[in-house]
Amino acid sequence: MMLINGHAQTNLPASDRGLHFGDGVFETIAVQAGRALCLERHLGRLVAGCARLSIAAPEPGTLEEECARICDGQERAVVKLMVTRGSGGRGYAPDKDALPTRIVARYPWPQYPATSRNEGVAVRICETRLGRNARLAGIKHLNRLEQVLARGEHDPGQRDEGLMLDDRDRVIEGIMSNVFIHRDGRLCTPDLSECGVAGIMRDLVLEASREVTGQAPECTQLDVADLITADECFLTNSLIGIWPIKAIEEKSLRVGPVARALQKLLTERGAMTHD
Amino acid sequence: MMLINGHAQTNLPASDRGLHFGDGVFETIAVQAGRALCLERHLGRLVAGCARLSIAAPEPGTLEEECARICDGQERAVVKLMVTRGSGGRGYAPDKDALPTRIVARYPWPQYPATSRNEGVAVRICETRLGRNARLAGIKHLNRLEQVLARGEHDPGQRDEGLMLDDRDRVIEGIMSNVFIHRDGRLCTPDLSECGVAGIMRDLVLEASREVTGQAPECTQLDVADLITADECFLTNSLIGIWPIKAIEEKSLRVGPVARALQKLLTERGAMTHD
Repeated sequence: MMLINGHAQTNLPASDRGLHFGDGVFETIAVQAGRALCLERHLGRLVAGCARLSIAAPEPGTLEEECARICDGQERAVVKLMVTRGSGGRGYAPDKDALPTRIVARYPWPQYPATSRNEGVAVRICETRLGRNARLAGIKHLNRLEQVLARGEHDPGQRDEGLMLDDRDRVIEGIMSNVFIHRDGRLCTPDLSECGVAGIMRDLVLEASREVTGQAPECTQLDVADLITADECFLTNSLIGIWPIKAIEEKSLRVGPVARALQKLLTERGAMTHD
Repeated sequence: MMLINGHAQTNLPASDRGLHFGDGVFETIAVQAGRALCLERHLGRLVAGCARLSIAAPEPGTLEEECARICDGQERAVVKLMVTRGSGGRGYAPDKDALPTRIVARYPWPQYPATSRNEGVAVRICETRLGRNARLAGIKHLNRLEQVLARGEHDPGQRDEGLMLDDRDRVIEGIMSNVFIHRDGRLCTPDLSECGVAGIMRDLVLEASREVTGQAPECTQLDVADLITADECFLTNSLIGIWPIKAIEEKSLRVGPVARALQKLLTERGAMTHD
């Protein structure tokens, strides 16, 4: 099921700048009991991303209404929203009169194994690095070749997630998730001012940090050694919620109480699915 | 006029990974007297780009035949070829069975003013920087937000091209072109091992270098000071051919004989359009 500019259709003009340049932004949202979780936050980020790219964002009310149509009656599903700068000519110069394209698409809920949330996941370190560009950092935009290449790397262990580093060996995020550590009683997550996607679940964890740990969280530079020496590590995104990390490459980590407390809190608040 | 997988149509499935992730490559080719210039080179680069992204490239013969169809009877035009990894699900993981999408589209020839080639162009320095990622460097892929942002920067001088630097203040390329300087009797162009697009016209100039200057060319690190102190600077791409640079921001440059000699040679060889 897919709505393109409000109409049920599955094709779009091949002149769309989303296709030609990755000129747009997207959101991936968990649907539970007919409701898109944290929709207001997702729409807020979508609008903010459009603003940073100077794309005229659709009215949030329009997207909200289209989301409601596509979520109606769905017990579990995923909604992906995309907004592109719309159709254009051949060149990079945006057409001032172009109307943005909005796509609201529904996908089946991915049946992640319950063990991932309960017992944690083993992750690898990706060979593919993230380039740094402050102009694009944090935005969930459509230029995602780095993630595609990282996901496509051969992994004999078939692990569910890989950590991505920048060219200075700093851990930035997972291929599809953000990463946190708990050390010295405090939650820390990589600073995303030069690369990475600032996730909605990441924001929720940052906001819940003081409640769970008693301390303000920290956005800082982290390397692999910081992760493997931490008290706990975990991954976040809007679909998985929170997955503890039980191993990074050969190194086993402790699955601990902070990740569990955050899972409980954010599930109770309706920000995470039940499983 | 557009062919998608060989069929005359203008829409494609919104599930295409070119749209979702910029997961593909493209070529921009000048058409003159019904013929796509340097087609073999363009197809070679397209196939090489696909290989670097592990996309199963279409048969060059198929693309060649589709190009011929679309160029037939066109006195002057532009052909854009795109190959994406094809349709996929929601996630980054490439579907092993996905069939790549090929798009062959024709656009009107852009009527560049003759003065650009003859008298040179004034260029600005873009505020948008290029991120560095060796895995993607050189490939003409569909992740082009940096170029879109650079092109969208406000320029009161409405200059035709902007130079893009990386985060270490090295000049890498123009928004839509490669850049060369001539100094101490030798042609130099930025090293593209960490970012930038390795253009077909750039290759042709590198290959013609010894013939025109008597010396081997050099791919090296260049900064703005290297450009403004050079004997000549010029831009290259498959549509513009060679444009001398007559000014960088406030600094005027000499339009010199090396750019003119290369224009003459490559036009005679049929690699550049007549004007």
